Amino acid sequence: MPDLEGVSPLILNRLSVYLRCLRHLQETGVERISSQQLADRFLLSASQIRKDLAQFGDFGIRGVGYEVAVLADHLNSLLGLDRSHPLLIVGMGNLGSALSRYLGFNHGAFKVVAAVDRDPEKVGRDMGDFVIRHVDDLPAVVRDSGAEIGVLAVPASAAQENYEALVRAGIRAVLNFAPARVKRIQGVPLKNVDLRINLEEVAFVLGPQGRGRGASLADPLDDDLPT
Amino acid sequence: MPDLEGVSPLILNRLSVYLRCLRHLQETGVERISSQQLADRFLLSASQIRKDLAQFGDFGIRGVGYEVAVLADHLNSLLGLDRSHPLLIVGMGNLGSALSRYLGFNHGAFKVVAAVDRDPEKVGRDMGDFVIRHVDDLPAVVRDSGAEIGVLAVPASAAQENYEALVRAGIRAVLNFAPARVKRIQGVPLKNVDLRINLEEVAFVLGPQGRGRGASLADPLDDDLPT
Repeated sequence: MPDLEGVSPLILNRLSVYLRCLRHLQETGVERISSQQLADRFLLSASQIRKDLAQFGDFGIRGVGYEVAVLADHLNSLLGLDRSHPLLIVGMGNLGSALSRYLGFNHGAFKVVAAVDRDPEKVGRDMGDFVIRHVDDLPAVVRDSGAEIGVLAVPASAAQENYEALVRAGIRAVLNFAPARVKRIQGVPLKNVDLRINLEEVAFVLGPQGRGRGASLADPLDDDLPT
Repeated sequence: MPDLEGVSPLILNRLSVYLRCLRHLQETGVERISSQQLADRFLLSASQIRKDLAQFGDFGIRGVGYEVAVLADHLNSLLGLDRSHPLLIVGMGNLGSALSRYLGFNHGAFKVVAAVDRDPEKVGRDMGDFVIRHVDDLPAVVRDSGAEIGVLAVPASAAQENYEALVRAGIRAVLNFAPARVKRIQGVPLKNVDLRINLEEVAFVLGPQGRGRGASLADPLDDDLPT
């Protein structure tokens, strides 16, 4: 395994994108593809693809390109998607409830296995695969459910304390949807999700006067959603 | 304005990231920065930064670097963030309700100005800045509210029909949170949001056996949330 210290979040994001493109190619029966073809087809950069992939091994064959299935398996394993990642939702308001049923959070390597809240009206509610428990029981919930990744869906003002409670309870990593600056604790990866960046992309395509730029929002992820 | 035909969604994403980094630098009093310093500070690639920015103009001064405020203003305007982008939410279930109050969707250039649903229990509900209206009234809602970007927060099975209804109602662009393959209509940009990609990044950092890789999830967006 190469040294992955300090790998850029943008590279991780691109690896995910490449994997989706490859899965789409697999579904449509493509067996081999060059970096240039991959780039042309999904509006990516061929040199960027070669550079990114070269960091993690020697996947391409000069003049032949990549074996789609082999490279997809490599990326799948590199991204840790060949084993299960049970999820725990903290905060079962509107966002937490939506995420607990979100298809992409309940497909393949991921599955929501537990949820906590502090509202007595919500605690005890049966969500089908689990029952909402009280946030004070976090250590037991993490232990009982085997949850690995905590998903923070609490108000901004409660993000820090709940992140810390998750860490104390033994969670391995945290995905934070609360719009708050959360101070990291060493050893427990934290990713802050900012949904606004999607709006900024759309605003860009609409152009400075909203008359459109002719730019496309063609998106390699379009055709590879879990179904 | 340079020709922006077919600009990659990854470039747009990077421009948003650069802008956030620059805003953070402005807040902390940094006036000039080189592409290398920018790259080092936020775990980006210096050559990528220079290449991306060169596509849209000549912003850097050799040996001096970028003027932070000037470049931030350029990117802000390039991304269309110097004018307002009113939003309309379609589907006021858990996700739509959460998005209608989401800070990043109600800050700076963005503001949720209207919402529709087809549930009679929800239609008429006062959300503070607007009242939920019936989805059948979409053309009037778009006209009355001046909404420019539609946000689809409906079940997968309803995504296509609601996208088409938004287009017929005169919306300019659509952000789709429904996990469904939506067929685009020419002239109305559509961006599909896949929240799962955030989980994949976290899974990567956890490593193949979940023992951690030492890779960081340092994120340039961390310290630049609207407050």
